[in-house]
Amino acid sequence: MADLTKPGRQFELRVPGFRAAGIACGIKKNGKKDLAVIVSDTPASVAGVFTTNKVKAAPVLLDMKRIRKGVASGVIVNSGNANACTGAEGMKAAEAMANAAEKALGLKKGSIFVSSTGVIGVPLPVGKVEAGMPNIVKTLGYDGLHAVSEAIMTTDAFPKKAVARLKINGNEVTMAGIAKGAGMICPNMATMLAFFLTGANIKKAALSKALKAAVDNSFNSIIVDNDTSTNDTVLVFANGKDTDEIKEGTKEFVAFTGLLTSLATELAHLIVKDGEGATRFVEIEISGAASAAEAKRAARTVAESFLCKTAFFGGDPNWGRVIAAIGRAGVKLNEAKASISFNGVEMVSKGLDTGREKEAARAMKARELKVLVGLGAGKHASRVWTSDLTYEYVRINSAYRT
Amino acid sequence: MADLTKPGRQFELRVPGFRAAGIACGIKKNGKKDLAVIVSDTPASVAGVFTTNKVKAAPVLLDMKRIRKGVASGVIVNSGNANACTGAEGMKAAEAMANAAEKALGLKKGSIFVSSTGVIGVPLPVGKVEAGMPNIVKTLGYDGLHAVSEAIMTTDAFPKKAVARLKINGNEVTMAGIAKGAGMICPNMATMLAFFLTGANIKKAALSKALKAAVDNSFNSIIVDNDTSTNDTVLVFANGKDTDEIKEGTKEFVAFTGLLTSLATELAHLIVKDGEGATRFVEIEISGAASAAEAKRAARTVAESFLCKTAFFGGDPNWGRVIAAIGRAGVKLNEAKASISFNGVEMVSKGLDTGREKEAARAMKARELKVLVGLGAGKHASRVWTSDLTYEYVRINSAYRT
Repeated sequence: MADLTKPGRQFELRVPGFRAAGIACGIKKNGKKDLAVIVSDTPASVAGVFTTNKVKAAPVLLDMKRIRKGVASGVIVNSGNANACTGAEGMKAAEAMANAAEKALGLKKGSIFVSSTGVIGVPLPVGKVEAGMPNIVKTLGYDGLHAVSEAIMTTDAFPKKAVARLKINGNEVTMAGIAKGAGMICPNMATMLAFFLTGANIKKAALSKALKAAVDNSFNSIIVDNDTSTNDTVLVFANGKDTDEIKEGTKEFVAFTGLLTSLATELAHLIVKDGEGATRFVEIEISGAASAAEAKRAARTVAESFLCKTAFFGGDPNWGRVIAAIGRAGVKLNEAKASISFNGVEMVSKGLDTGREKEAARAMKARELKVLVGLGAGKHASRVWTSDLTYEYVRINSAYRT
Repeated sequence: MADLTKPGRQFELRVPGFRAAGIACGIKKNGKKDLAVIVSDTPASVAGVFTTNKVKAAPVLLDMKRIRKGVASGVIVNSGNANACTGAEGMKAAEAMANAAEKALGLKKGSIFVSSTGVIGVPLPVGKVEAGMPNIVKTLGYDGLHAVSEAIMTTDAFPKKAVARLKINGNEVTMAGIAKGAGMICPNMATMLAFFLTGANIKKAALSKALKAAVDNSFNSIIVDNDTSTNDTVLVFANGKDTDEIKEGTKEFVAFTGLLTSLATELAHLIVKDGEGATRFVEIEISGAASAAEAKRAARTVAESFLCKTAFFGGDPNWGRVIAAIGRAGVKLNEAKASISFNGVEMVSKGLDTGREKEAARAMKARELKVLVGLGAGKHASRVWTSDLTYEYVRINSAYRT
């Protein structure tokens, strides 16, 4: 999988038939890019996953209506303002944003989705979006996704983008993904947006099923369900140029879902690595759980624990905090069989300390941590990814207002 | 209510018939007090509330057995070692600790409760406890509770103690309480111990009912249910010297429960104020909830939010974070009626920003914050107390090992 944040790009960040642009229209006070458009040359299949937060931003509500049709041309996105908790005026502003894009691109009403990210509760200056449209249209191009990845950033330290190609039944399918998000890995804490573009030929229902599977194993393994921001949105557009129709239940569908999952996981990991103030990327793996749900709950409870997160920051193999988190997760645990290791060094075996603390502390000097917990209560496993809790996180978030 | 951390104590910290002592026996490497005993001259009624964590320390398991009898003489407590996750040897150590105290005090087996707090997973050096018993017995006195309040501290910045007297049906009842705990307010994160002593005459069942009510409105409003450490313990001993028997369903029982709740709340607030690295004491009050459970869940979700806690630290009236937390709490919210205020300054009215941000920021320069959220969805309310998330919290917890 090509990771464009690393050197040696294998593929260009472009998908045939999709143009894009990202510009500054004046919403961000610092003059940085804050408005983006992605548009397909031809109507595309579309599927989406949206925040489960009961408070949903106006653009999310708009998109949730538009997604029913299953066909669309693209999306307009602004950063710097979330257009959330903005009442009836907010919904008007979201519609005006879509209208402006549709008009400028010569598209029918209802063709364009809208995403917003930034500060909550401040009216969206939609006039700036409208005034920016001529500039957006002028700069639209097949290489525009890089600019989009910058224009959707808020507190992100770097743009997040990934691209891959896969042969599916003899056809080479291209897929690109871009994302923003740098919250503390639980995007209950910061908006996560992701957009996928592909040349695959796949209809609404199958596309939606593939997306849900991909999101569950990627963004939802860094995001706690029901624990999302007011604006979280993932959209996938498939313009059908590359393949014959991919239908549910076929091996082509499995391959397509794998491709989408793989790109989504890559972007999800980049979001964790960009966790606000994060110094470490931490994988929590639970095994030996009595059920899949218990495995996931245990993993998340460790990943969300203030005390575990500060111990990860300090590089402290403090397994007592891990076991205390597991204990309060309400999952079955066979203490006499429990095990905990940090970066391969077993600190707890059969429920008791192994005395390998110094060794574990040395192994934890890495930027990537792997915490493995065996519950000894069954055969189920789960993984989540998180980051550490640092001084820098406190600094960013005690001062931050976009 | 006398708060002994403030000048002008109204009452002495003593309850007739209870002796106590706190000494250093060498468990803490820094030589500070780490062993305490409280003992009633005559057998007392006893009630307890224990951690709901599935991983329970050995002393908690021992106490949960002993509490059934409803009569006991006192408790022995050590700090510096939690005797948790220590297997069968841990249970032997807890029993040895009780035996040592019972023997030294000339009491029957089963008369003494045991509490431990400190690092998890390290064998308890019970020989040091045994060796300390002659010194404990020698220093036992009716003024010993101050020493106990010091001996049970771990990361606490100050000892926590409170005392009050109340006339109940013509009899003056004395009650004293001491506590330890300085975790980040959710004692899922640090052990909380509290011990109450009273001269009231009240039997096991009534005492237990009063304690549960008191804990629910105090420690459990800073503690998330099912979200406690491996060692959390609250015990109340009533030696019967001050009153006629207080029976359930009487106005004396209501008065007694009020007294216990009041002392417990005072200690709970002291624990929040001693939150690791805390700079602010924050009260979250939810009103207009559809049910009492939803009110409590909403309050706790705000109180536990990393982003809300850092905003409190920064004195930022960032109501977007509050509403985002409420939204993911899964409670009914009527956005069009929602309101949020910080220290009396309404930032959101009828779901919209009032533009009073500067005024709110000024009001938030206080050490005590009150965040009021109206959900507009019903008539239920709840309050919880929390603190802010600070650099100092990260420092303490990324470095901490007792």
